[in-house]
Amino acid sequence: MNNIYEDLKDALDKKQGVALATVVGGPAHVGTKLLVFPNKTAHGTLGLPELDEYVRADAANAIWSGDASIFSYSLPTAQSFDVFIEGFPPPPMLIIVGAGHIAIPLTIFAKTLNYRVVVIDARAAFATRERFPSADELIVAWPDETLEKMDLYPSTSVAVLTHDPKFDEPTLKVVLTRNFGYIGAIGNRKTGADRAERLLKQGLTEEQIKRIHGPIGLNIGGAEPEEMALAIMAEIVAVRHHKNPTEILDWTKK
Amino acid sequence: MNNIYEDLKDALDKKQGVALATVVGGPAHVGTKLLVFPNKTAHGTLGLPELDEYVRADAANAIWSGDASIFSYSLPTAQSFDVFIEGFPPPPMLIIVGAGHIAIPLTIFAKTLNYRVVVIDARAAFATRERFPSADELIVAWPDETLEKMDLYPSTSVAVLTHDPKFDEPTLKVVLTRNFGYIGAIGNRKTGADRAERLLKQGLTEEQIKRIHGPIGLNIGGAEPEEMALAIMAEIVAVRHHKNPTEILDWTKK
Repeated sequence: MNNIYEDLKDALDKKQGVALATVVGGPAHVGTKLLVFPNKTAHGTLGLPELDEYVRADAANAIWSGDASIFSYSLPTAQSFDVFIEGFPPPPMLIIVGAGHIAIPLTIFAKTLNYRVVVIDARAAFATRERFPSADELIVAWPDETLEKMDLYPSTSVAVLTHDPKFDEPTLKVVLTRNFGYIGAIGNRKTGADRAERLLKQGLTEEQIKRIHGPIGLNIGGAEPEEMALAIMAEIVAVRHHKNPTEILDWTKK
Repeated sequence: MNNIYEDLKDALDKKQGVALATVVGGPAHVGTKLLVFPNKTAHGTLGLPELDEYVRADAANAIWSGDASIFSYSLPTAQSFDVFIEGFPPPPMLIIVGAGHIAIPLTIFAKTLNYRVVVIDARAAFATRERFPSADELIVAWPDETLEKMDLYPSTSVAVLTHDPKFDEPTLKVVLTRNFGYIGAIGNRKTGADRAERLLKQGLTEEQIKRIHGPIGLNIGGAEPEEMALAIMAEIVAVRHHKNPTEILDWTKK
């Protein structure tokens, strides 16, 4: 049991997502615990492999919602268990692809909102510590190759700001086939439509392509890089909180 | 003529708003210039007092729009003049009333967007340089008395974050009878409705009260101070760019 708490502390310290499940009611095993990680591996047992299996799926979801609540499970053996599942989400992450002029204020906004910020650009002159003093990670490499090796989660947002199909299309192709929370890409409607057509020809589905937010950001006006960055950050937060477009402007629902 | 450029340079250096009007076509006075300040006082002349008078109003508007364009004037004397009017807006200003936990990230966002930021709070323990290292001005005083003495302009936004009628009502009373760009006040719908009723009894008009954005901020979800601050900043920028609520979320219009 102590091992479970050590692993929990370790996951929290490392700011990895984790969920803790505890049997709080049932014919047996009350107090047993299961720790579930983002990749759905687990540590510990609730006493019955079948119960572990059910709980693992709900616990993995709780990691991202951060919810704490009791779930009830009826096993085929007719035994019922109440399991308290607490999710501990990792800090949300923003991956900025393209270290241009919008990326600078976007990094400031995201850091202020306690996001982990990773900036990727193949151009070493752009992705510098001088330009991004507060970024958690600066990666000078091809974005698609970098993203292929990264863990993406439902709390991961990706902002593609390269303005260059040679970078943004391979990036979108990698991200759209993965698990992630938000993806937005810069470019006007025409650019977006052309890009969608090319991605479709390259084998992505319409459903995958529809997940791209483009033109990126809420339409709050203004053409300054700082205003663009603000519009993008506001959209990322709105999507994270599952606000649909009509709700966001509906002051009567606040 | 040189004096005009000296005054123009002076106003630009001081980051005051200013507009320059130049006669570019007409039966006479081509090349004459008039400098117009936010309070509609002017320096110089376009040669005809009546023309100065007409131009002064349009130039005062151009200060806030930042537009540069040719206006045509037909005087009662049947003379027509083309006047090129260039507006130079001052940096937008955000006045934050209430130096609590939302004011801190809001100051960071507004400074990143190049706003001049003034934080006012009667409580000295809150309005400190440690809490607001990047604010342009920290004022420990009653907000209503402070605002009464300040110049407010169409580029001025006011965010009332006190959560306390004893501070926010006198503040709203002062601001709503003045010239300003945006005012928002924290509090849920019920708080807002109660406040509106009290302000109405204190002599404000329904039209004035309707200008309060409340609950403050775009409805992007999230209850963290940083998320609230982001929602407020996004609303201020949207209002500054005359985005109406339905437009902001309409990605097809981007």
